[in-house]
Amino acid sequence: MFFVWEVLFPVTFSTKFKLPLLMKKIILFLFFLPLLALGQSHESRIKAIYDTELSSGHTYNNLRYLCKEIGNRLSGSSGAAAAVDWTKQLMESYGFDTVYLQPVMVPHWERGGKDVVRVVNSKKHGTVELASLALGNTQGTGAKGLLGQVVEVKGLAGLQALGSQIKGKIVFFNGPMDPTKVDAFEAYSGAVGQRGSGAAEAAKYGAIATVVRSMNNRVDGYAHTGNQRYAPNVAAIPALAISTKDAELLSSLLADQADLQLYLESHGEMKTEKLSYNVIGELRGTEKPEEIIAVGGHLDSWDVGEGAHDDGAGCMQGIEVLRLYKQLGWKPKRTLRAVMWMNEENGLRGGQEYARVAKEKGEKHIAAIESDSGGFLPIGFSSTGTAEQRGKIASWADLLRPYQLWNLQKAGGGADIGPLRDQGTLLIGLLPDSQKYFIYHHTEADVFEAVDKRELELGAAGMAALVYLLDHEGI
Amino acid sequence: MFFVWEVLFPVTFSTKFKLPLLMKKIILFLFFLPLLALGQSHESRIKAIYDTELSSGHTYNNLRYLCKEIGNRLSGSSGAAAAVDWTKQLMESYGFDTVYLQPVMVPHWERGGKDVVRVVNSKKHGTVELASLALGNTQGTGAKGLLGQVVEVKGLAGLQALGSQIKGKIVFFNGPMDPTKVDAFEAYSGAVGQRGSGAAEAAKYGAIATVVRSMNNRVDGYAHTGNQRYAPNVAAIPALAISTKDAELLSSLLADQADLQLYLESHGEMKTEKLSYNVIGELRGTEKPEEIIAVGGHLDSWDVGEGAHDDGAGCMQGIEVLRLYKQLGWKPKRTLRAVMWMNEENGLRGGQEYARVAKEKGEKHIAAIESDSGGFLPIGFSSTGTAEQRGKIASWADLLRPYQLWNLQKAGGGADIGPLRDQGTLLIGLLPDSQKYFIYHHTEADVFEAVDKRELELGAAGMAALVYLLDHEGI
Repeated sequence: MFFVWEVLFPVTFSTKFKLPLLMKKIILFLFFLPLLALGQSHESRIKAIYDTELSSGHTYNNLRYLCKEIGNRLSGSSGAAAAVDWTKQLMESYGFDTVYLQPVMVPHWERGGKDVVRVVNSKKHGTVELASLALGNTQGTGAKGLLGQVVEVKGLAGLQALGSQIKGKIVFFNGPMDPTKVDAFEAYSGAVGQRGSGAAEAAKYGAIATVVRSMNNRVDGYAHTGNQRYAPNVAAIPALAISTKDAELLSSLLADQADLQLYLESHGEMKTEKLSYNVIGELRGTEKPEEIIAVGGHLDSWDVGEGAHDDGAGCMQGIEVLRLYKQLGWKPKRTLRAVMWMNEENGLRGGQEYARVAKEKGEKHIAAIESDSGGFLPIGFSSTGTAEQRGKIASWADLLRPYQLWNLQKAGGGADIGPLRDQGTLLIGLLPDSQKYFIYHHTEADVFEAVDKRELELGAAGMAALVYLLDHEGI
Repeated sequence: MFFVWEVLFPVTFSTKFKLPLLMKKIILFLFFLPLLALGQSHESRIKAIYDTELSSGHTYNNLRYLCKEIGNRLSGSSGAAAAVDWTKQLMESYGFDTVYLQPVMVPHWERGGKDVVRVVNSKKHGTVELASLALGNTQGTGAKGLLGQVVEVKGLAGLQALGSQIKGKIVFFNGPMDPTKVDAFEAYSGAVGQRGSGAAEAAKYGAIATVVRSMNNRVDGYAHTGNQRYAPNVAAIPALAISTKDAELLSSLLADQADLQLYLESHGEMKTEKLSYNVIGELRGTEKPEEIIAVGGHLDSWDVGEGAHDDGAGCMQGIEVLRLYKQLGWKPKRTLRAVMWMNEENGLRGGQEYARVAKEKGEKHIAAIESDSGGFLPIGFSSTGTAEQRGKIASWADLLRPYQLWNLQKAGGGADIGPLRDQGTLLIGLLPDSQKYFIYHHTEADVFEAVDKRELELGAAGMAALVYLLDHEGI
């Protein structure tokens, strides 16, 4: 304490003038009072958030309902429509100040039937069925299917070397996710180009279809679908994913037999756009209502599994942040919005429309937090913003570390909140551990049972803690 | 660079004397060279460890063998003996410099048959079988079983209030693990007294048996066994655990019906002590062979499941640390020992004997690292040692953080290495995330399939990285 005193009032240490000891103590007390009160309040409030969530949270049971009663919900599907209705009702049942739907037109792609990738002429095994899923937004082969010789490349870069050998063939992209990347999202980034642009690039060389090794950092039997984009003025060829296990098999068969042929069947069709909605719930700020903090995830999923980790988890966590405020009897200073964006998976229309409307209305989003990396153990937050904004997040490290939210350094945000960037909004992503995400991502395995209750709750509580700090401290 | 130069050679900035610029640069380069080399070497070597483990590690397949081919291995069992033989052979196959067995006498408890906890007179449900497991080291009821009225307490503290009402009854300890503790081991510490001392304490009040709510932070159907200790001069009464789900059920039945009776049956018997072994593999140090770094886990497990997380994972990770040195072609400066301690679960004889022999031989263990908190995502290391020792661990934060080993602050070590404490050994525990450990701990569910490959490998690589630093820098 003496050191502090010296720093604050060095003059009193001169021999010329001394304050009485009692007065010193009073001044000191008054000086530190607000700081102490602030610190204690933040700590105790964050503890209240965690205690409430971990002992009586709704996140897990809400996710159960979304997954088990509604299931998967690709944009334009009946599941997506049901999820819009239910999340609106859920937020209304919690008594949020405002709950509304924001219309947005979305692409409507349908798988249309069972996908087939079949090795037809293996000398070793004869006919072999491979676990497959057509990629999203693809054109199907039609009911007649498609037969062709297959040629393997390790990644997009392998196409050029093969050049004219590709013409008339099925290109098999077999570049694995790099296992040495500790952050699995880095490994995903390094490999996903094969899925996203593989068909478009291979078509330029005259390929008749593509098959891609699933974006999975494990070797198992699940095929992973996902988005792909055709290029303008290039043939829209069928594109399917096969499981990592079957990619290994196919590669080994090809090593022994260069004239291997595949039969493909897929039925994908891009239909007329449909009307859908972002679902928005709001607690109105009591002091600075014009400053908005948005928090949530995307409500759509792929058309397989239950969209539990991707991204039912993020949606339920977003709603839970506002519900915790209600359960704790807190009124926010700023306006808090739980947002379930529509169409992240194959169009990003919801995120774009949300930002467009915000700009049109002159809304001021000071921060947006998205949880779209799975309902796994949270280890921190990524962010994209000014140095000052990111510095403020970092200044809360001592408040977040007791809850294992160690990593506040990573850059990032979320796909749906990205379009808010040019409005000066600080973009934040919940950062769960990444090891297991790509086991489940875009597969039949992404179901409620794959989500751990406490990990999901720790994510919801962590987001609520950060929203609380942003709400009280601004950014 | 100018700032650095000023600090190093302030005199040259006087106007009286100036070194030629080239000479300045050379001096500066020579000054920083060793620092740069050191830093780069550590970083690149740790990266080599992770790259090797994540792309071609043996840990996961070795754990598969231990779990699937040998299975559980309670001290004194044939499984424990088989595990001793196999781990010795495994380390020999890797060409470690020395592999040997260290004899140790261990308790030999046998479950002896199927455990039964049955509600016999529920007005609501009639007869109800509860999922149960006798606790380790308990005396059985005998084949005739035991019938008694049941009385519920929330924890050890509840016994005194009931006092004489306990006499002749079965005490049901139903204190849950506190869900608000973010660190599940803290919640375990707060509840495990009921399991460890419940029978001894209840017997003092004349209880005829005890039933304890399993140490599980989830509500599910698995009973969790575990150690318990009878007190001297107090009756050794039967003690069984029931699943958390059935603890909730039993509690609700008791709320409606105070005269509820349980029938218990257990067959536990403490047999004659048996000869067993710690299994030790060694890479001899090339510069300071007298300084030993021990790393490993405990080879014994409970007699249910496969002892995958507890603690097959730690054993396989310990062996992997030395195997990585071999694969990478590194020779350690100090002596590295992979140690599989015997009898952590119900006696700690292996850890005690290991420390006793070390002292007797005048061995100098500079550090011991134990992995006994499951093969889950590693988030750091706990340690117990001098401030200087712990400070040195903390000084490596920048080298470990890229691998998500953020938490270097927690106090702790491991049960088996604890007896080395009074020899000045720095005790270190691998610190995995704790959320899921108590789902599997001491249950039929602790099987190979419950372990995630990458999480297990990240633990092995993290331990190898820390061993590398201790080996090269000392402590």
